[in-house]
Amino acid sequence: MDFQKILNTIEDELSHKEVFGEVASYIPELAKVDPKKFGMYLYCVNKGEYQMGDSLEKFSIQSISKVFTLSIGMKLLGEDLWKRVHVEPSGDPFNSLTQLEYECGIPRNPFINAGALVVADILVSNLDDPKAELLKFVRKVSGNEEIDYDPNIAASEKSTGYRNYAMVYYMKALGNIKNEVEPILDFYFHQCSLAMSCKDLAHAFMIYANQGKIPDTGETILSTKKIKRINSLMQTCGFYDEAGEFSFEVGLPGKSGVGGGIVAIHPEQYSVAVWSPILNKKGNSELGMAALEKLTTMTGLSIF
Amino acid sequence: MDFQKILNTIEDELSHKEVFGEVASYIPELAKVDPKKFGMYLYCVNKGEYQMGDSLEKFSIQSISKVFTLSIGMKLLGEDLWKRVHVEPSGDPFNSLTQLEYECGIPRNPFINAGALVVADILVSNLDDPKAELLKFVRKVSGNEEIDYDPNIAASEKSTGYRNYAMVYYMKALGNIKNEVEPILDFYFHQCSLAMSCKDLAHAFMIYANQGKIPDTGETILSTKKIKRINSLMQTCGFYDEAGEFSFEVGLPGKSGVGGGIVAIHPEQYSVAVWSPILNKKGNSELGMAALEKLTTMTGLSIF
Amino acid sequence: MDFQKILNTIEDELSHKEVFGEVASYIPELAKVDPKKFGMYLYCVNKGEYQMGDSLEKFSIQSISKVFTLSIGMKLLGEDLWKRVHVEPSGDPFNSLTQLEYECGIPRNPFINAGALVVADILVSNLDDPKAELLKFVRKVSGNEEIDYDPNIAASEKSTGYRNYAMVYYMKALGNIKNEVEPILDFYFHQCSLAMSCKDLAHAFMIYANQGKIPDTGETILSTKKIKRINSLMQTCGFYDEAGEFSFEVGLPGKSGVGGGIVAIHPEQYSVAVWSPILNKKGNSELGMAALEKLTTMTGLSIF
Amino acid sequence: MDFQKILNTIEDELSHKEVFGEVASYIPELAKVDPKKFGMYLYCVNKGEYQMGDSLEKFSIQSISKVFTLSIGMKLLGEDLWKRVHVEPSGDPFNSLTQLEYECGIPRNPFINAGALVVADILVSNLDDPKAELLKFVRKVSGNEEIDYDPNIAASEKSTGYRNYAMVYYMKALGNIKNEVEPILDFYFHQCSLAMSCKDLAHAFMIYANQGKIPDTGETILSTKKIKRINSLMQTCGFYDEAGEFSFEVGLPGKSGVGGGIVAIHPEQYSVAVWSPILNKKGNSELGMAALEKLTTMTGLSIF
Repeated sequence: MDFQKILNTIEDELSHKEVFGEVASYIPELAKVDPKKFGMYLYCVNKGEYQMGDSLEKFSIQSISKVFTLSIGMKLLGEDLWKRVHVEPSGDPFNSLTQLEYECGIPRNPFINAGALVVADILVSNLDDPKAELLKFVRKVSGNEEIDYDPNIAASEKSTGYRNYAMVYYMKALGNIKNEVEPILDFYFHQCSLAMSCKDLAHAFMIYANQGKIPDTGETILSTKKIKRINSLMQTCGFYDEAGEFSFEVGLPGKSGVGGGIVAIHPEQYSVAVWSPILNKKGNSELGMAALEKLTTMTGLSIF
Repeated sequence: MDFQKILNTIEDELSHKEVFGEVASYIPELAKVDPKKFGMYLYCVNKGEYQMGDSLEKFSIQSISKVFTLSIGMKLLGEDLWKRVHVEPSGDPFNSLTQLEYECGIPRNPFINAGALVVADILVSNLDDPKAELLKFVRKVSGNEEIDYDPNIAASEKSTGYRNYAMVYYMKALGNIKNEVEPILDFYFHQCSLAMSCKDLAHAFMIYANQGKIPDTGETILSTKKIKRINSLMQTCGFYDEAGEFSFEVGLPGKSGVGGGIVAIHPEQYSVAVWSPILNKKGNSELGMAALEKLTTMTGLSIF
Repeated sequence: MDFQKILNTIEDELSHKEVFGEVASYIPELAKVDPKKFGMYLYCVNKGEYQMGDSLEKFSIQSISKVFTLSIGMKLLGEDLWKRVHVEPSGDPFNSLTQLEYECGIPRNPFINAGALVVADILVSNLDDPKAELLKFVRKVSGNEEIDYDPNIAASEKSTGYRNYAMVYYMKALGNIKNEVEPILDFYFHQCSLAMSCKDLAHAFMIYANQGKIPDTGETILSTKKIKRINSLMQTCGFYDEAGEFSFEVGLPGKSGVGGGIVAIHPEQYSVAVWSPILNKKGNSELGMAALEKLTTMTGLSIF
Repeated sequence: MDFQKILNTIEDELSHKEVFGEVASYIPELAKVDPKKFGMYLYCVNKGEYQMGDSLEKFSIQSISKVFTLSIGMKLLGEDLWKRVHVEPSGDPFNSLTQLEYECGIPRNPFINAGALVVADILVSNLDDPKAELLKFVRKVSGNEEIDYDPNIAASEKSTGYRNYAMVYYMKALGNIKNEVEPILDFYFHQCSLAMSCKDLAHAFMIYANQGKIPDTGETILSTKKIKRINSLMQTCGFYDEAGEFSFEVGLPGKSGVGGGIVAIHPEQYSVAVWSPILNKKGNSELGMAALEKLTTMTGLSIF
């Protein structure tokens, strides 16, 4: 299949498409990004690599980082992790406190903010230097030692992150947070600030498409069982309140971030990352969704 | 792969397993079933068929019927159907009125009761004799002209179906029900009462595994796009509040019913039906879930 | 105190006041009322009677009837009534199913619709002819044998009362409704259709201001304990989601209806009824609220 | 009326009554109180004073302090205060975040925790030294210069006050908190720690029974309009989720605290404070409720 031609077609058809959403603005620093940016990177299990547009430019990966921290948390705790966060789709906007109140402090899944904050708490409990460890993990799976946090983004998140503070304090009241609030949120705001390119993300997510192994080295990062769990979670919970729509339109497990990035994987076929900062009403990249839908339509590859 | 051996192993290992749940009792007639029943039927795209236990005995398919009515509804209305029912996972128990109130009468998806009742309303609006048409559809896709409604079950559902009446009246108040309440519920209680065996279900669901076609005749029942949508919905919403868990443990699109039946499909590989009446706390067949988990583990086949 | 002068002042000041709300329209028949109607009737424990405007014209009392049915229900069941309906303010719009779901079918109080429907169920269970008995009660306490149901209003309520059907079926599912649905709703739609004038209402509510006794005859209708309970409920729950505001602005126990009527009582002083069909956003008569606020300000009489 | 005899009877009848609740334990320091404590103090507008039991012993007034801070807030902001907190009963447990989410950060009333925290924010914004000002206010209205905060209680509240932190951060996210979180909570935990006796509270609350004036000096602390508002709020919202029950059983405006104190007033008659640390399931003093119910029954004085 001529993947490069497909990516070129996607670029041609979508880069002039009228979009109606807006760049994320609740984090001041994020609002500064150029809304015209558009890039895509496809990395195949057979090692073919294809790209278009701004695929090498770094952007703020935001919630995509939740897949990395969950992976580390699963390595640390194994099945015990699921005592502190559930695996069911949310059915509520991504920052709902109501759901949390109803379910006694156990978040619905690790990809809503509450769940990611519990995972952050777990990493803070179990790692000497969680920020350094996360960086080490991400650099390794993406094969790029240059990847780093963006301190401006992290500071900007902190300055307006009241809702996340509320959520951590609330779960602490309900007994599901073990550490002090500040180190958890410092870690969380940093993980969201990770700056990566589409290429970095496609490489990093190859472990989820490739049964847990880094293709170049063959090193096993996660067991196939853990990979299956993470992929299943990305399928049912990776897109806030649009998981069902994405599951149908694209038909692949994936994860989006408010920075405008989306990564998706087709097990044993490829991983793919796309970036366009303008978001639809549900908080997912408008062009990113369209690009992935075109990709699976044109390749005919979907898990369904 | 020796599917028969795998089914035999599943039967051996699970038929003596201690189970802790109970047979569904909210419908009096359902409570009469023998809790020891256990059967499984696997039907491959390459036409291999394998079975064990009570695989030829009919049982009440209950919510599994929602996949059939949705299929007919999609044939009737196409994309317009999605104006009246959403495609997102529920995140709430399967009969929640709260969700409905919050979302102004548009059910979260067609597999929660509210959604299935809207689909029933659509069929009542668009078909002269919806009960006859449903029977015709099910007999055709399963290749069994003997399939019929169980009038005792239908009557039993009606006698205790107050919550369903509440839901239809509530959606009528909110403008999302077009017909009188009685014909909708008469149709709905009948669809739930359909009596089918594991073999019938495995055959009927082959269209979802086989790109919309009946293998024996090659006849196309649904377009591949509609099949993808239905499979995606079964993946994210097919198991009440246990969709995430099933998606991980089994890794296949599927649908369960409180009669103890579960059907799942592996696209382009097989469809499989299992029946055991004892339900877990989430309302899914306890042995059925375990049997499908074993099947995907032993075959190594999963969509993730 | 010159009550007549006060009523005249209220009429002068308010009858030309610009109002921004609308007449209730969800019941088609109610929408036909002349929005300019405005009347008030004050009936003192010392037997003085004062009136202004359309105080003798009958209108649909709607939810005000809930006070009468509650009074009958308390006479029938005594304290046992409180096992089936609570006495706490609602905190939610008057027709919320969410609250009901959260509290397992026990309505928050007898003045939200759900609570009044449970009271209706109780009357249907305990009276041979509940419609006749209610009429008998209302005619007696108001001293007007002409009072009757308005069959057009009752039929109009029934034709659009889907939400009330939903509520009764839902509570039946939860075990808090004992009779068939139709007779309960037939009774309920009739009670709401009672046509009474401000004079009728002021007379009828005198029992709540006068320790349970009809002034003219001295006959005791309700014990002082029951009167205290009903007055306390009118104080905390009589005005949908505006109970707190009314409790402050007016400072009297009272009950409003979407027909534009409001009745309030000052224990051991007077009962007062006002009618103006235009409703504010919370569903209470806009001029009625203002008139009662003026009354208590000008008389200096308030329970606080 | 022989109030002293009535108080003696209440002491006799209730001090040996079996109680089933427990002392508040969520604040460690509160759990240390002797559960047998029982005192009551009645202060009449005509200056008669009556007491029994431990009426002169100080205890932690907790939520009763919300009436004082609301009074100061109303003096500072007048009607503008109601833009930031509503006046409707809650209908949900006293610490519900759901309600807050549903109503966009505006608490239902100033006596639920969220509302009191907004009032605390207002005091922090408008007073140079809010802790000193509150002390000054309370000492003045109670006529006792010895009243002070209990630093152990304040520290104990802070150490476990995660839910309050969550609430403040959440309302800050929603735009209804203007200051930094720490000074607000420091003030709030101090206000809750105020140590006062039944005598102190009965004296302090006399301003609400006496049209805003201190009886001894005749000084006006609050306008009659503000007094009416506060009394109305105490009537409808003073007892968490038991406001309706208290309104009926006692029939007076009042406020309770988890320290086991309750204050109630009968406008133009008396103020009364009672203390017994064992709480019922709704979080109100079990004997305190019973004592006030006896008082109004025996005196025949109730606002209804």
